[in-house]
Amino acid sequence: MDRELVLNTGDRLPLVGLGLWKMPEEKVPDLVCEAIRAGYRHLDSACDYGNEAAVGRGIRQALEAGLCRREDLWVTSKLWNTYHRREHVRPALERTLSDLGLDSLDLYLIHFPIALEFVPFEHRYPPGWLFDPEAAEPKMQPVRVPFRETWAAMEDLVDAGLVRNIGVCNCTLLRELLAECRIPPSVLQIELHPFLTQEKLLRFCREAGIAVTGFSPLGALSYLALGMAEPSESLLNQPVVTAAAIRHGRTPAQIVLRWGIERGTAIVPMTSRAERLAENLNLFDFALTPEEHRDISALDRHRRFNDPGVFCEQAFNTFFPIYE
Amino acid sequence: MDRELVLNTGDRLPLVGLGLWKMPEEKVPDLVCEAIRAGYRHLDSACDYGNEAAVGRGIRQALEAGLCRREDLWVTSKLWNTYHRREHVRPALERTLSDLGLDSLDLYLIHFPIALEFVPFEHRYPPGWLFDPEAAEPKMQPVRVPFRETWAAMEDLVDAGLVRNIGVCNCTLLRELLAECRIPPSVLQIELHPFLTQEKLLRFCREAGIAVTGFSPLGALSYLALGMAEPSESLLNQPVVTAAAIRHGRTPAQIVLRWGIERGTAIVPMTSRAERLAENLNLFDFALTPEEHRDISALDRHRRFNDPGVFCEQAFNTFFPIYE
Repeated sequence: MDRELVLNTGDRLPLVGLGLWKMPEEKVPDLVCEAIRAGYRHLDSACDYGNEAAVGRGIRQALEAGLCRREDLWVTSKLWNTYHRREHVRPALERTLSDLGLDSLDLYLIHFPIALEFVPFEHRYPPGWLFDPEAAEPKMQPVRVPFRETWAAMEDLVDAGLVRNIGVCNCTLLRELLAECRIPPSVLQIELHPFLTQEKLLRFCREAGIAVTGFSPLGALSYLALGMAEPSESLLNQPVVTAAAIRHGRTPAQIVLRWGIERGTAIVPMTSRAERLAENLNLFDFALTPEEHRDISALDRHRRFNDPGVFCEQAFNTFFPIYE
Repeated sequence: MDRELVLNTGDRLPLVGLGLWKMPEEKVPDLVCEAIRAGYRHLDSACDYGNEAAVGRGIRQALEAGLCRREDLWVTSKLWNTYHRREHVRPALERTLSDLGLDSLDLYLIHFPIALEFVPFEHRYPPGWLFDPEAAEPKMQPVRVPFRETWAAMEDLVDAGLVRNIGVCNCTLLRELLAECRIPPSVLQIELHPFLTQEKLLRFCREAGIAVTGFSPLGALSYLALGMAEPSESLLNQPVVTAAAIRHGRTPAQIVLRWGIERGTAIVPMTSRAERLAENLNLFDFALTPEEHRDISALDRHRRFNDPGVFCEQAFNTFFPIYE
């Protein structure tokens, strides 16, 4: 199996990336450097994760230690919801580049198809979901910015040589974007795991030449502490997963991650534990049998853990569905 | 209960309309005239139903018999998929108006968020789904027409006084349209029944001021003969439905239709049988108990019978998902 996906731009996206959501700032520099030492060449960052300066320190540490060259490293970041207006897109990218200590990104994604009122950098960075967290009843403040306005500004970043690839996250059917764009998206990043297989969306993207990266490839794991998943929703103790793990002498997590890359998607598992870094990357010296793969796919229950239609209401007092 | 929905334009849409999909042309004039005699003031027509000239004859028959005035009648029609390009929208409407024998429509809807290659009227009308039905391997021929291009042409029809209201069908999240439009849609028409309740979409529309019309309000019924539903999927023998029917001395269909209008949606049930016309309209002299209403809502299983992602592939050899 190839270790990279070839994008519609010809660029090559490493199949396994390190997800950096929720990684505590103080741990991030060493984690990033250790990940690069362990063989990671793909970092999945975002303004909203609030740790891009620390990611930048980790990258610098690794480069200075000679672990790899900048051009060996794939760095993704994401435009936050408050910067969807045309005039805010480039400043947002420039802030991300300056935090990461880079001249350009390999991939810049629109983080959500959700446009929120602008919050100036000096007011709050990253600005998060709420317009005024100090308000008596804090809420999101959606604004009507057409998606194509934001996309056109993303295209300008490619023209300016500041990003090599552009794409979207947390979108489902991309037909409108394809009908409108000058530069088609090269990547869709979306939640994907055996409880949310999204076969139809994957097929759509395959036929449209859009590569797919799955976030939360281990499912509930990232959402337990946030109260967005129940312990009973763990994938890792599903009998078809544990049985395959025993057969292959792998961990259940490796089985589920291998299933992810066997679908032709990149994955960006997260870990803050050094010993897991290697585990999550060591997926290339075994293969699921067709039956195992099929049985894991059959776990699908259309369970989406990261759904703004749910969490924006629960946490931010705002009804904002983006999925059916 | 009011018998009409007040739209965001101030116009009043009668809650129960007569759906005209699949109604055989030879029966349609009498059916339409009988429906108007029975009290229907809302007709749900479409270019694609292939019977608009017959609908027009029925309307004329009713008007000439003095059953109502044109201004008492709400007539909806729908722009077909092959006419999405800006320059085809007005001619398509004019053909519909000429077939219906009307000067203007009360509501014109974009039938599907699916743009197909133009087929000239003289070539085939209505053109249906396939580009060339005589081809060895007939297929759909999708074209990339931005939805907003079509919408802008719909807005022009309002300006020209040719339609009083515009809207969309078979769309889910309408946020992009709302961010782009000059005239917001006043109606969304979508499949709705107790097996497909779409609470989130209804709430979105309510908050956005968009009225909703449910098609196929009786569920599987319209899809059995097409092989798009199984007899076991009938709503009308669900215990909660039949029990309520017995309690109220109504038919199961009346229970399900009443549930539909109690949700604040208009409905457009179909029937080709004169005796059913009155039955489907007589929904205003009883009410479900809150428990009955809730139990019927709990039948939801996200079962969509009319899904182009399924039937376009089965029947037209073309993968074209529009729902998740």
